[in-house]
Amino acid sequence: MKVVIIGGVAAGSKVAAKTRRLLPESQIDIYTKDSHVAYSTCGLPYYIGGDFDNWQKLVVRTKEEFEKSNITIHLFNEAIKILPKRKEIIIKDTLTGKTKTDTYDKLVIATGSSPIQNDGYNKKTNLFTLKTLEDGIAIKNKMMTSRNIVLLGGGYINIELMEAFVKNNKNVVLIESSKYILPKLDEEISELVYEYITKNSKGLVKIITNDFVEEFVGKNEIAGIFTNKGLGIEADMVVSALGSIPNVDIAKEAGIEIGITGAIKVNSRMETNIPDIYACGDCAEKFHIVSQLPVWIPLGSTANKEGRIAAVNLCGGNEDFEGVYGSTVTRYFDLNISKTGLTEKMAKSLGIDVISITVTKKDKAGYMPDSSNMTFKLIADKRSHKIIGAQAIGCGEANKKVDNITVGLENNITIHDLINIDLTYSPPFASSVDIIHTAAMKLQEKLLKS
Amino acid sequence: MKVVIIGGVAAGSKVAAKTRRLLPESQIDIYTKDSHVAYSTCGLPYYIGGDFDNWQKLVVRTKEEFEKSNITIHLFNEAIKILPKRKEIIIKDTLTGKTKTDTYDKLVIATGSSPIQNDGYNKKTNLFTLKTLEDGIAIKNKMMTSRNIVLLGGGYINIELMEAFVKNNKNVVLIESSKYILPKLDEEISELVYEYITKNSKGLVKIITNDFVEEFVGKNEIAGIFTNKGLGIEADMVVSALGSIPNVDIAKEAGIEIGITGAIKVNSRMETNIPDIYACGDCAEKFHIVSQLPVWIPLGSTANKEGRIAAVNLCGGNEDFEGVYGSTVTRYFDLNISKTGLTEKMAKSLGIDVISITVTKKDKAGYMPDSSNMTFKLIADKRSHKIIGAQAIGCGEANKKVDNITVGLENNITIHDLINIDLTYSPPFASSVDIIHTAAMKLQEKLLKS
Repeated sequence: MKVVIIGGVAAGSKVAAKTRRLLPESQIDIYTKDSHVAYSTCGLPYYIGGDFDNWQKLVVRTKEEFEKSNITIHLFNEAIKILPKRKEIIIKDTLTGKTKTDTYDKLVIATGSSPIQNDGYNKKTNLFTLKTLEDGIAIKNKMMTSRNIVLLGGGYINIELMEAFVKNNKNVVLIESSKYILPKLDEEISELVYEYITKNSKGLVKIITNDFVEEFVGKNEIAGIFTNKGLGIEADMVVSALGSIPNVDIAKEAGIEIGITGAIKVNSRMETNIPDIYACGDCAEKFHIVSQLPVWIPLGSTANKEGRIAAVNLCGGNEDFEGVYGSTVTRYFDLNISKTGLTEKMAKSLGIDVISITVTKKDKAGYMPDSSNMTFKLIADKRSHKIIGAQAIGCGEANKKVDNITVGLENNITIHDLINIDLTYSPPFASSVDIIHTAAMKLQEKLLKS
Repeated sequence: MKVVIIGGVAAGSKVAAKTRRLLPESQIDIYTKDSHVAYSTCGLPYYIGGDFDNWQKLVVRTKEEFEKSNITIHLFNEAIKILPKRKEIIIKDTLTGKTKTDTYDKLVIATGSSPIQNDGYNKKTNLFTLKTLEDGIAIKNKMMTSRNIVLLGGGYINIELMEAFVKNNKNVVLIESSKYILPKLDEEISELVYEYITKNSKGLVKIITNDFVEEFVGKNEIAGIFTNKGLGIEADMVVSALGSIPNVDIAKEAGIEIGITGAIKVNSRMETNIPDIYACGDCAEKFHIVSQLPVWIPLGSTANKEGRIAAVNLCGGNEDFEGVYGSTVTRYFDLNISKTGLTEKMAKSLGIDVISITVTKKDKAGYMPDSSNMTFKLIADKRSHKIIGAQAIGCGEANKKVDNITVGLENNITIHDLINIDLTYSPPFASSVDIIHTAAMKLQEKLLKS
């Protein structure tokens, strides 16, 4: 059997590795326009910040290591066309410009996603997006000689880059077009993140919301920007992280169905509508288990799971990927920011009758010297009392609490189930009445009063 | 209504506080032979170690603060008899020796537990147990002038005290009669704790297993001990933590039913067999939700929950305490040691057909400078595939993983449910394939092969 995989970062490399284990005799080829396979894009902000110095550490498995397992890696080889009827793909060597054709028995599309870029972005030498290893290396190099950095967009990537830049004593201005940063969180949680950043950034950070870049000043190299509201900001470099889009052109052109989110539609076996063609990772649409709706939440952890499922099924097995909860975590220095399930505003927009509570208390026994405040928001369906989401921020591991709720979501946990649940307690780790207990009790009280 | 509570540490003080909120007009009295109420015994090892200097920090609420809420605290007042038919109790003032009688409408027994003491223990001036605030203060004071300390028993308390003593550069010898320390964990997990202690104690610690103290050398003050196997060990002080027993004498004598574990039998409303008498906290028996058997696992976090439930019910409400999972966490310096549900050996002893897996991997992305190994054991019922327990140790927050499993236990989570569960991922917090995923996948594979 001949398995061809387009793309080799998280999902693609996982498909290859798992397929090799399941079918030792199969032929496996990865085509990628990239310079590397199997690297951690999520780790790039920490490389840039200097948590570690060697970008090679981000490479989980090299081309050479794959080839020892008889998996052929074609770097700088971009797949440009799929011919499903002939079971062929056309590939262009991006170094020589030459094209060639390869055949497949099973094809896996793992083309990933790309950062949104405004017109003319690539004409500026000091305007960056962060996606590939090269992007990360280029941003780090430019940062070294920069003093003033502008970040466009207030999502996770730019919060992580802000930490990296502040760690290196750069002046940072972040511009977010929404009313608040991290707009995927509920506003009051995001507001607390804003406050933390303001107080814990050595005075180096300025955050501008409700505004966006209108004009770049400077010809090839940006010297500064003007915002829509007319603010002028000096910049030695600009990083744009305004969201991303799934890479679906090659799939679309081949007649593969695209979902309402714009990503490739797949079933729970990671199959597309065309036989023997699978899609997984950032290019594929996901299913949100709480809302029961298609969503597009591109994450490395999901790509890994989907890659494994695609491999199992294309090798003749039968496993399903049930979907995601929209669980995320990031940090800004010591502040841990995490969510799962639906936010309150998302739930309301879906017409769910929501009840929620937000609690702030110490993350461990108050007398422990490193105890600090954690804020935890618990969201439930008012009619069924089922938990539908949670958000947490704090200097302890707030995502610990969020992960607990995710496991609860898996089995429709209710407010009542959480009130007395036997979570581990010891003074260095938690409060004897855990923040989850407190939130569940207060939510129960609120429910009784409502 | 007149509510009388015997005992005022975790459960007793919780009953009082919650009753006051629910019934503002009630009369509430706490009788305790202790010198303080509402303090954290779990925090004593950290006070002794020097994590903080002021033992007053352990007092959650003082007598004076309670009295501001019109809750009367009778310190140094030991309840010596309950007369259920007359709804009276007899109390002895331990300072004056005088006795008096009080009446109640609702009585709550929260007498706690006591450390097991061998004969003649209290004849030795430098032999300690750790239960009350005074015990903690006395141990800290004696430690200051001691060089060599012997710990009897290898359970949680002594592991925590070992950290405290090593932090203060004391030589510590711990003697455990079982084959291994922390005998409530499975042996291979405990073995890893042993290895960690051996390597991370500045050469100050010696652990002796399969042996026990045979003889104390010295008349009033112990100068050393001889073990059963004939080892002689110098000691400036000895702390004994060989387990504890529930304080049930007063209940037993009053005709209150004692369960098979030796603790006071209660239903899920925390009611004893005698009307209007409740029991909660360490003196009460608990119900283990996984084994569906009565157990006695005395913990401050459980005492808090039971105290709240008892208060709600005695005030005319209706809430149930469903039981415990045996969830615990402790630490030895950076090592976090945690469990929930049944251990493999406990499950086997109950006749459950068990399948388990133990996985070791990095607790966060391997390239993050503070990543370190975590070991996670996942235990399931071979027939139903239901998860029945987990254990974790590591320098990251191992109890995060264990708490996730506890929430799963609440709703009968299966091996399959855990394989693709959407736990939060970001390089500083987890591996993109979480240790829970890896364990669940390997357990699934093992199941298919078995």
